[in-house]
Amino acid sequence: MSRLDETHDPARTSWVESAVGHPDFPIQNLPHGIFNRAGEAPRGGVAIGDLILDVASATAAGLFEGETLTAAQAAAGETLNPWLALSPAERRALRRRLSALLSDTDQTEAVRPHLVASSKVRLHLPARIGDYTDFYAGIHHAVNVGRLFRPDNPLLPNYKHVPIGYHGRASSVVASGHPVLRPHGQTLTPGVETPTYGPSRRLDIELELGVWIGQGCALGDTIPIHEAGRHIAGLCLLNDWSARDLQAWEYQPLGPFLAKNFLTTVSPWIVTTEALEPFRIAQPQRPDGDPRPLPYLWDDQDQARGAFALELESAILTPRMREAGETHFVLGRGPATNLYWTLAQLVTHHASNGCNLNPGDLLGTGTISTPDDSGCGSLLELTRGGQNPIRLPNGETRTFLESGDEIILAGRLGAPGFVALGFGECRGTIA
Amino acid sequence: MSRLDETHDPARTSWVESAVGHPDFPIQNLPHGIFNRAGEAPRGGVAIGDLILDVASATAAGLFEGETLTAAQAAAGETLNPWLALSPAERRALRRRLSALLSDTDQTEAVRPHLVASSKVRLHLPARIGDYTDFYAGIHHAVNVGRLFRPDNPLLPNYKHVPIGYHGRASSVVASGHPVLRPHGQTLTPGVETPTYGPSRRLDIELELGVWIGQGCALGDTIPIHEAGRHIAGLCLLNDWSARDLQAWEYQPLGPFLAKNFLTTVSPWIVTTEALEPFRIAQPQRPDGDPRPLPYLWDDQDQARGAFALELESAILTPRMREAGETHFVLGRGPATNLYWTLAQLVTHHASNGCNLNPGDLLGTGTISTPDDSGCGSLLELTRGGQNPIRLPNGETRTFLESGDEIILAGRLGAPGFVALGFGECRGTIA
Repeated sequence: MSRLDETHDPARTSWVESAVGHPDFPIQNLPHGIFNRAGEAPRGGVAIGDLILDVASATAAGLFEGETLTAAQAAAGETLNPWLALSPAERRALRRRLSALLSDTDQTEAVRPHLVASSKVRLHLPARIGDYTDFYAGIHHAVNVGRLFRPDNPLLPNYKHVPIGYHGRASSVVASGHPVLRPHGQTLTPGVETPTYGPSRRLDIELELGVWIGQGCALGDTIPIHEAGRHIAGLCLLNDWSARDLQAWEYQPLGPFLAKNFLTTVSPWIVTTEALEPFRIAQPQRPDGDPRPLPYLWDDQDQARGAFALELESAILTPRMREAGETHFVLGRGPATNLYWTLAQLVTHHASNGCNLNPGDLLGTGTISTPDDSGCGSLLELTRGGQNPIRLPNGETRTFLESGDEIILAGRLGAPGFVALGFGECRGTIA
Repeated sequence: MSRLDETHDPARTSWVESAVGHPDFPIQNLPHGIFNRAGEAPRGGVAIGDLILDVASATAAGLFEGETLTAAQAAAGETLNPWLALSPAERRALRRRLSALLSDTDQTEAVRPHLVASSKVRLHLPARIGDYTDFYAGIHHAVNVGRLFRPDNPLLPNYKHVPIGYHGRASSVVASGHPVLRPHGQTLTPGVETPTYGPSRRLDIELELGVWIGQGCALGDTIPIHEAGRHIAGLCLLNDWSARDLQAWEYQPLGPFLAKNFLTTVSPWIVTTEALEPFRIAQPQRPDGDPRPLPYLWDDQDQARGAFALELESAILTPRMREAGETHFVLGRGPATNLYWTLAQLVTHHASNGCNLNPGDLLGTGTISTPDDSGCGSLLELTRGGQNPIRLPNGETRTFLESGDEIILAGRLGAPGFVALGFGECRGTIA
């Protein structure tokens, strides 16, 4: 069952010139977000090249009707929660209309007045997040980190049976660009008996994908694995900033708390499930000897197309590099197929006990790393717990983040015969 | 600095007859909640005896003016979030006006039309919960549970230094009376290598206090310990239903997840910080040898009045008891002074890394237990991990909860020279 349509056609181009060949936002992407111009209230927009379609303004001008009018109204307000509550069919209808409006040159005159330059706006969190859950599905991250503490037995016995996750803090999820204040907290210096309170000295990143929940499920209901995809409205990049010294001291026995909840940064555009369609690939086969998941987590169709042809990247720009006019340095680059569980498995597991999900809930996948150093999603892994500093091209070294360092996450979707898409920026600078 | 006023006067009585001698809601309590009558939208109310003052209706009738009008409007809507955002002074002004209206017999005629019988309404969650955090501050619970796993060393090294907490699920917090569906999930039978998926067989309760956050703090700000009390609007009872078999298998290394997030029940009335004033007592002295907390967590004034003269109780009613017309059986009863940290310490710690708090956030204290079996807040403790079933008066036994069992939590505030107050019901029946 292919869900490809004319909106994925690589031959389709936008009359918005900057969209043609745009690394992130060609006409095949059309991600939704929330923006505002100075002095205006936040409102829904759709990214196209270097411009943003003001959905409210386009709606008021009569550019949508029938089913697409309802959907456009849901995508026009101060948050995208109403759009997230739409059915996939309603989202798809809106996408087809948006694609037509922005590619059909007959529409140029009618649509152009509703386009705003991205450089003139501020981007916001796309939705009011009801609950934020962070998983631990990046298996190489789990192994790399587990090895620091248990060299002979890095993975715990439950890892390959149950998608490990925990609840994060919804209130401190922010959009790209929000300053990163170094958190204070309790830490215990090794060899000392009494903790001290002060600024974290082991501030780290975690490169993850964020999953925006679309239609939810009621308390007491579950989501069968073959229906889980219907509940995912789209994806973003997510940086789960982590204070490793706070984490080491606080996390037993109930998990991370203040080490994580001071800030989580997401890329502000929701790259829709529909835009992701051409980039679906098979979930990597489990190594021989790995247990087959329990039936509630297994669906052949999901295994056949539950992963994405998506390359993720983290990069750093230090104050010295910035002053010298240098470009950022790539810390790691690797495929999103390094997730042990599909997104459908995460959603189904989350609701498997009757926990309700709501439109606007956010799931993090957990840090996505490669088995080697080429694509570590955290400095903890790359520096072996802070033991091996990394050397930057200008001679600087880093174990953890220093003041003024900027971290930039990027994600790039590519598949033969289709136009490549990106997520836009996910960045934050240590204040 | 006493914050007592005429609203705490034990000689003051209400002209609402059922309020006189009411175990929970005499005129000295005046808790806020959200209720509706069949066919009506939910709205703010104040409990007085067996009646509820309809705040919107009383406001429309002109019973409030000036400062108390603004505060009453904030307490009148579909959720109490606007009331939670008020300053303590605004809350106090409204309380004084409510107390006058409901005690002054000259007001009877004007106020009576706005009173509704509690028996005719449905009570709702009092606020939209932005984030729910659960702490682990009941030290005897931590010891009792820790002893099951580490008999010689039940408390982890961080326990007496850092208030342990984790994020819970906000979407599945419900008001008293909501049915408790037995969650399904993965469990690992001891001695077996492969988990199975099915209904939990070790469904348990956790008796806690819930803390409703009033005015919040911005991202990056902290809350000094001497100001923490200002951010607490009131308390409720909280039952953190727990599936012990799911928990044992899933919780390493990131803490409880599906074992907890299927349901959390709270008593629907917010017993205000102002109503609690006469029941403040000194936090029990730490045993000799316990570390003194770091300065950010220590305030002499908080230690002098940071605990409450509050007795908590959990009780069970089985289907056989119900059929036989028997009353519920008390599982445990004990003082809330069994918390190792004050509520102010929990709030200050939560914000100590810059995490923002918002009006309507909910904190759980963690299970409150006695050192012995007289007041265990969970069956896990009372049955020694399910090894020693408890015997009910009718000869039935229980290790964990069975279908049809009802759990009733109660809390009673009492202090010499003051009228005792209660929290109202916090109950749930296993479906």
